[in-house]
Amino acid sequence: MEPAARAGPGARSEDVRRRNLATLLRHVHVHGPTSRSALTNLLALNRSTIGDLTSQLVAAGLVREEVGERSAAAPTRGGATVGRPSYVVVPEVHGVQALAIDIGVTHLTVARVGLGGRVLSRRDLALRRGPRRMRDVVRSLGRVARDQLAEMPAGTTCAGAGAAVPGMVRVPDGLVRQVPNLGWTDVPLGAELARELGMTVVVGNDADLGALAEHVRGAAVGCDDVVYLAGHSGIGAGIFTDGRQLVGRGGYAGEVGHLAVNAEGQPCRCGSRGCWETEAGEERLFALAGRPPGGGLASVREIVLAAASGDARAAAAVEHVATWLGRGAGSVINVFNPEVVILGGALLEIYAAAEATVRKSVARFALAPPLEGVRLVPPAFGLDSSLLGAAELAFAPLLADPLQAMSRLHAS
Amino acid sequence: MEPAARAGPGARSEDVRRRNLATLLRHVHVHGPTSRSALTNLLALNRSTIGDLTSQLVAAGLVREEVGERSAAAPTRGGATVGRPSYVVVPEVHGVQALAIDIGVTHLTVARVGLGGRVLSRRDLALRRGPRRMRDVVRSLGRVARDQLAEMPAGTTCAGAGAAVPGMVRVPDGLVRQVPNLGWTDVPLGAELARELGMTVVVGNDADLGALAEHVRGAAVGCDDVVYLAGHSGIGAGIFTDGRQLVGRGGYAGEVGHLAVNAEGQPCRCGSRGCWETEAGEERLFALAGRPPGGGLASVREIVLAAASGDARAAAAVEHVATWLGRGAGSVINVFNPEVVILGGALLEIYAAAEATVRKSVARFALAPPLEGVRLVPPAFGLDSSLLGAAELAFAPLLADPLQAMSRLHAS
Repeated sequence: MEPAARAGPGARSEDVRRRNLATLLRHVHVHGPTSRSALTNLLALNRSTIGDLTSQLVAAGLVREEVGERSAAAPTRGGATVGRPSYVVVPEVHGVQALAIDIGVTHLTVARVGLGGRVLSRRDLALRRGPRRMRDVVRSLGRVARDQLAEMPAGTTCAGAGAAVPGMVRVPDGLVRQVPNLGWTDVPLGAELARELGMTVVVGNDADLGALAEHVRGAAVGCDDVVYLAGHSGIGAGIFTDGRQLVGRGGYAGEVGHLAVNAEGQPCRCGSRGCWETEAGEERLFALAGRPPGGGLASVREIVLAAASGDARAAAAVEHVATWLGRGAGSVINVFNPEVVILGGALLEIYAAAEATVRKSVARFALAPPLEGVRLVPPAFGLDSSLLGAAELAFAPLLADPLQAMSRLHAS
Repeated sequence: MEPAARAGPGARSEDVRRRNLATLLRHVHVHGPTSRSALTNLLALNRSTIGDLTSQLVAAGLVREEVGERSAAAPTRGGATVGRPSYVVVPEVHGVQALAIDIGVTHLTVARVGLGGRVLSRRDLALRRGPRRMRDVVRSLGRVARDQLAEMPAGTTCAGAGAAVPGMVRVPDGLVRQVPNLGWTDVPLGAELARELGMTVVVGNDADLGALAEHVRGAAVGCDDVVYLAGHSGIGAGIFTDGRQLVGRGGYAGEVGHLAVNAEGQPCRCGSRGCWETEAGEERLFALAGRPPGGGLASVREIVLAAASGDARAAAAVEHVATWLGRGAGSVINVFNPEVVILGGALLEIYAAAEATVRKSVARFALAPPLEGVRLVPPAFGLDSSLLGAAELAFAPLLADPLQAMSRLHAS
């Protein structure tokens, strides 16, 4: 953690206090309950300042203080523990919640996520694959979201909503440019959801949000150079370089599914040919295994099981996709030199089923120096990385300026 | 430019002064002679502080002050201009110099570059293509560099040296991991050059340094998302995302030449097959045009001329490489969503000869949103981008802390 800000002629004390409140709240949001003395060390502030900051966050309903266990090393006198009790600052998981929305190719999920990143309740709707009117998706989400909001106890603060979509989202206005699986082009999803839900809804690319959640509190904590690969119908990536998320000029960076990997390859839904996702994506697996298209993760798992049970066609299909998964991952490693590559969704199923094939292919296509020490790992949050990333998006304004955000939320 | 730092209890005034000196020197290094009044505005400091900072840099021999032209708008009285003269702060281009070294596949270049980025003199040695002992290259560079140093007038400060190599360089220790064209693996080039030259030599990847020079003062000034593609024997990239250079965990990011683009492609010297540089690199052009390998840029130009003069085989070779240049560039655009793609070396020759083919191929393989508004441009510095980037590397410590660096340089 960065040491706290200090007041000075150039930095107004109000700004300093605001920054320190944000740092403290972010710490307990990310790391969970933390003792006052640990916060004193982490923020490099004195005890009374930490006490004041905590009191302000308590008054705003963002954290509470609990009396922690006394130190085991505390001296006893006549059997009674002595010394000051240790106060622990705890995020108000139930008192401050966000709505997290994940729009998938075959599912819609709405969850209540408490401050601290805990999923408190969720509702998953199966979605028929194929083009859908954005208006219909927004209405379905609205119904589920209202149920979730109704479940929030009286006095709960809803910090807002975040939504993950499997497509390109323009920065800074959040216009959803392309969601091929749903047939959307240039739809103002955030604005429509905001109207439906009556609150701000920030929209992000699902792979970017998956990477965000894994970076904040998942498989990539403490890693500065991260590639999170999301395999669903296509392949997307959320990427961190030197500790910061890769965005690109318009917000579209990370479309690794459309790396041109095979000159003589299959046509891609993007209009091109031989894109990585045409070889390592789910649909290629289904076609090679002789299954109908659009089976999603359930169908991927069936094929993997069939391959393990001796179905030669399924086994060959898994081998093909595993080889191409490694080939593309090798390219990604050459370009980004990451510390960790997280394999999400269908890619994880393939990796688990054919790890040796994937690793051999990665080793063949990655150069030796960037390959050194790179880890291929599953996401810490399974299929929920994007959902949890959407919650992080919703909490972001609160974490940036806690008191102002709270007063804005309560005024509205 | 960031407003200047201000003193406060949390920021020691010595640190503030140091930062402001660095900001001022960096400004005139990058932007050239600047009036005191412009600096006053840019740094948001008062006139007397700018005067003090300037005086310190003058005393250190880093800048000088010249009396600029009086404002044309100044009121005249009886024909004479009035008002205070305008002082212009000018970098000491001749008084402070760096050695810039560019190690190419077929050349060695050593240049004296003055503060402000101007090449004052240079010496190019032709290099026989093929494996070379690092020790021999270091000796050759040493001879040329000593000549260059001998040309520096008495009293000149040499800020150090930077060297660009066509291979992967480990961060932070500068070990050169692989330079396939020279047959080098894990060579301590920086240390050997430092011993030979008797000064610190910082080593960087040539494409990274090319991108650096173009970002600081070339074709990508003011652009936050930049891909500089360097085409020589292979293809490398130097990349900026959100204004910061992409480095990767070990320093190896940007190896776009080893994107796997063609499953059934040619063997690559990296040990893999179908890498981008096997289709869009010089050697592919030579093979398709029926020329001997290793001809370098001169041979590329001959083939382009032959194609323009009706040589069908040369024309087909140019078309092939141009198509694949666009294909790979499309992938790079999908992954990075850059604002500008700079085409350096042989890639520029191909682009100039077959722009329509390259653009058509890019448009076919790049997704529509990241393609919007992306510019394909030549480097501002032609074949010298890496050389100038090496100079930036050499000047970096001086620009970070001018007075301390100068006292260190004069003590040694």
